[in-house]
Amino acid sequence: MAKDQKEKNEQVEDLKEEVVEEVLEKTEAAPEKSELDLAKERADDFENKYLRAVAEMQNIQRRSNEERQSLQKYRSQDLAKAILPSLDNLERALAVDGLTDDVKKGLEMVQESLVHALKDEGIEEIPAEVGGDFDHNFHMAIQTVPADEEHAADTIAQVFQKGYKLHERVLRPAMVVVYN
Amino acid sequence: MAKDQKEKNEQVEDLKEEVVEEVLEKTEAAPEKSELDLAKERADDFENKYLRAVAEMQNIQRRSNEERQSLQKYRSQDLAKAILPSLDNLERALAVDGLTDDVKKGLEMVQESLVHALKDEGIEEIPAEVGGDFDHNFHMAIQTVPADEEHAADTIAQVFQKGYKLHERVLRPAMVVVYN
Repeated sequence: MAKDQKEKNEQVEDLKEEVVEEVLEKTEAAPEKSELDLAKERADDFENKYLRAVAEMQNIQRRSNEERQSLQKYRSQDLAKAILPSLDNLERALAVDGLTDDVKKGLEMVQESLVHALKDEGIEEIPAEVGGDFDHNFHMAIQTVPADEEHAADTIAQVFQKGYKLHERVLRPAMVVVYN
Repeated sequence: MAKDQKEKNEQVEDLKEEVVEEVLEKTEAAPEKSELDLAKERADDFENKYLRAVAEMQNIQRRSNEERQSLQKYRSQDLAKAILPSLDNLERALAVDGLTDDVKKGLEMVQESLVHALKDEGIEEIPAEVGGDFDHNFHMAIQTVPADEEHAADTIAQVFQKGYKLHERVLRPAMVVVYN
């Protein structure tokens, strides 16, 4: 009798399962639930993709702005570098003995207008003077001479060629002789 | 009897409706379907936003590249313009009578190195010669003289000041006197 009852219970359980399955199939609750999950996943997926795209877009814009500012700031670098030898030549021409006043005046005018044009674009001579401190960031030692009581080590003994910088960037270091 | 049958039919119909409603409520098919619609809408919405963001990102990148290329191409414009008066002064200095060979050589060296530096950055003299055709895109007429049998209208009678261009962009037109 207990066994019969158990069997009967099992039959009822099986029947219940069948009914539940049938109802679920009929109402399509199961596939609908799965479709919902898929739709939710798709929504989450595109939300993530969208947020990443927005972040990436902001990065691109930021980098592009930085790059533009840098290009703008240093745009004259190459032309300025190429012009420096002309300035050197002008200075050498001005150092020649026996120039007439007219020629000297003309040369000085050219020199001034060049220096002025460079200054307008942020290019300036690097300070370097005899007796001043040697700074390896802005000066290049092309020769050394022994320091003595009157000349401290790491001071400039002679300026060979002027140096120039564009904003804080060195276009060409000043070539100097240093006491050491 | 027909009336009874009709009533019975109506009752059955009502019952059917009740059962359908109950089943739908129990399986929560109706609210689930609405949730599904919402999820699908959300997915579509973010897909659209994502696609628009990607398109916008590509636009930003394209514009940024174009801008960078333009900045790069015309970067030397301001410094070059500022240097042109120095070139003019050099030419005037070279035209002075009685220069010693040394001075002349020095001036020519400065002039050549300037022209060379400008050329490297894409800056060149605008062609303009006496007898050549006047081109209002590149030449500026500062004066006119009457054309005659030997001098056709719209040809250049004299070049007052050289013009320069950076790639295809005019930095300064050539100042000329024109027959007309």
